[in-house]
Amino acid sequence: MRDTVVMKFGGTSVADGEKIRQAAGRAIRARRQGRHVVMVLSAMGHTTDELVDLARQVSDNPPKREMDQLLVTGEQVTISLMAMALEGMGVPAISFTAGQMGMVTDDAHTKAKIKRIDVRRIRRQLDEGKIVIVAGFQGVTEDGHMTTLGRGGSNVTLVAIAAALGGECENYTDVDGVYTADPRIVPNARRIARISYDEMLELASLGANVLHNRAVEFAKKYDVPIHVRSSLSNRKGTWIVSQSQDMERIVVSGAALKKDLAAVTLKNVPDRPGLAAEVFHSLAAAGIVVDDIIQTEPVPKLATISFTIELSDLPEVEAVCDKLCRKHTGMVCEARKDLAKVSAVGLGMRIHTGVAERMFAALAKGGINIRNITTSEIKISCIIDQAQGPEALRLIHDAFGLGGKGRKKTGRK
Amino acid sequence: MRDTVVMKFGGTSVADGEKIRQAAGRAIRARRQGRHVVMVLSAMGHTTDELVDLARQVSDNPPKREMDQLLVTGEQVTISLMAMALEGMGVPAISFTAGQMGMVTDDAHTKAKIKRIDVRRIRRQLDEGKIVIVAGFQGVTEDGHMTTLGRGGSNVTLVAIAAALGGECENYTDVDGVYTADPRIVPNARRIARISYDEMLELASLGANVLHNRAVEFAKKYDVPIHVRSSLSNRKGTWIVSQSQDMERIVVSGAALKKDLAAVTLKNVPDRPGLAAEVFHSLAAAGIVVDDIIQTEPVPKLATISFTIELSDLPEVEAVCDKLCRKHTGMVCEARKDLAKVSAVGLGMRIHTGVAERMFAALAKGGINIRNITTSEIKISCIIDQAQGPEALRLIHDAFGLGGKGRKKTGRK
Repeated sequence: MRDTVVMKFGGTSVADGEKIRQAAGRAIRARRQGRHVVMVLSAMGHTTDELVDLARQVSDNPPKREMDQLLVTGEQVTISLMAMALEGMGVPAISFTAGQMGMVTDDAHTKAKIKRIDVRRIRRQLDEGKIVIVAGFQGVTEDGHMTTLGRGGSNVTLVAIAAALGGECENYTDVDGVYTADPRIVPNARRIARISYDEMLELASLGANVLHNRAVEFAKKYDVPIHVRSSLSNRKGTWIVSQSQDMERIVVSGAALKKDLAAVTLKNVPDRPGLAAEVFHSLAAAGIVVDDIIQTEPVPKLATISFTIELSDLPEVEAVCDKLCRKHTGMVCEARKDLAKVSAVGLGMRIHTGVAERMFAALAKGGINIRNITTSEIKISCIIDQAQGPEALRLIHDAFGLGGKGRKKTGRK
Repeated sequence: MRDTVVMKFGGTSVADGEKIRQAAGRAIRARRQGRHVVMVLSAMGHTTDELVDLARQVSDNPPKREMDQLLVTGEQVTISLMAMALEGMGVPAISFTAGQMGMVTDDAHTKAKIKRIDVRRIRRQLDEGKIVIVAGFQGVTEDGHMTTLGRGGSNVTLVAIAAALGGECENYTDVDGVYTADPRIVPNARRIARISYDEMLELASLGANVLHNRAVEFAKKYDVPIHVRSSLSNRKGTWIVSQSQDMERIVVSGAALKKDLAAVTLKNVPDRPGLAAEVFHSLAAAGIVVDDIIQTEPVPKLATISFTIELSDLPEVEAVCDKLCRKHTGMVCEARKDLAKVSAVGLGMRIHTGVAERMFAALAKGGINIRNITTSEIKISCIIDQAQGPEALRLIHDAFGLGGKGRKKTGRK
């Protein structure tokens, strides 16, 4: 069988007729190289926002089933236009909605999960020599209701289709790859040629906003390589792949900065079983996503629980905590705003020692106070004052030789 | 079982959030009267035109399958918004695309014909107390390709759903019924309370542009009454129904004027079998719709063939005829522009005599020259100079007592 490539184009890459024709040209070049080509498309530009606005005009609280019925039209418009553009350029093409391609999901409207994909219909069209264009972000339930896959949904479609077809993913976007750090903050940041799924997951959740975690998790599960690249140039971007031994030679692959955090500390927490659970259950019930949690040893019988949250959630978190403090006499809640988290991520941490030490030394040299530390097998994060965030990111980036020449020394091309 | 009403709202009646809520209010009132309510909706305002524009931006000649895939999104947006509006107003509702409601058509994209409707899904939702909202104008093939029903398609959907459910049709539009003549030309024209399918078919094809003929033919076939009424008021409009004996008491029900016609005359046509066929085959192959055809007796061996066409088709018709004249030596083509057709329509013509006479006398009294006459069982049409069209319409309208008091005399309320 021929090589299959599944190309995804985001909303900005199909925002108007001209961009649609450019994307079509890219698909045609791949087709002429003898590859089977599937395109996964998002809605044009701001279409989804406009549809949400329309919904708000008729209802304060639109039913999710109807919201999905509305939103899926955005991608349907793009795919039919792309098929027209390709046919107009002399290349046979056909567009498929989720229902037409057999992308079946559960019925969790607005955040559905894929149950199965029947790619026989796609394969038949590829075998007939057509470029197949599928609508990203959408699915259909067993009963024929339309669903959407939630944030990052088009990338989930990309990976799911590639996994089902046994192809490679190309994710065309407005950035040209994954960098060792945000180039707007760290001028000597370098584009990473290859990065593992696990590193990407840590970097994405740390704020390097290239690919949504759900798509990367999906790609990891089915071992589908993703090439993140720019729709504006032909140069190579970043391959997100399963880890290789070679990758472990590099201690730290990238550094990230996550801004606008707050830390909340509950003091004098009675050391009773179930009390921590009560705290975090109350927060979850209010829809708060807690970032990191630190609980200190109880001295004597009274613990301190700290956790970080998005700054925007602080008012709601304080309301929840005040309620808890009124219930458990003596318990006190303190909050600190304007914090940031700086992190170093790398598969190499698993086998190399001294990473934490080198990171702390770099921050100390810059006079940056570390408020909290959290670690995973492949990352170290420090909570610091937001004002010092950019400087901290640059210091860590340099300390691990990620920029320009430094990175070359570690032996990766 | 409860009474079922199928309400159709055209594009101008759902053009924005406010109008969608108004239409929703109308459906809710019918629901509260204890009726099952199905709504058939068109795309909002100028959506369809905007989508066609988008298609033109990417392709000069978009494939019809993809055009349909694109256009059906227009109605899908409206139906989901309507469901949201109804739910927001506290009334359970659900929207269905053609695929979801089982509206199966052939695969003649952009002008598909309905093969069957499986209304079980609609009925189930009605039985659960919901208002069911279906997308007009669209269908789906056995293989799941999207189709559209062509001009007047939403009205075809209206009638088809009502026929399948055994309900009544209400067609909400921006006019408040069918008139004895165009009120912009004939100030004393009256709204007709009841008109037969056959009369409506003649009036529609003569330019009284309320309901497309396909929908009326469909309604006639399945004997579905249609109530044409205004979405801006609550007063009754015109019922289009099967004929009743009562109707035949009225000689002429309405008069119509069709403007912008041209007449083409082919002279010295050799009186050979198959030559008329060649003429009209050539015109059909060029996509020309011929209105009326008049062939005079061949004198000697040379016939004259006249026919009327839309003025806009004249350049193409002249090109076709010139070709024929070059082929058949001696044949000559003459064209006359700026013609109109004035007609009187009525079931009563079948049994009453003297209708033609009265019509010609009225036109003669006004000094209007008749160029051609064509008739059917229930109509008489005269081709006249366009400049005299409005005056001719008024004269005929008066001659048959259609206006104000005159009509009352005939005994119909």
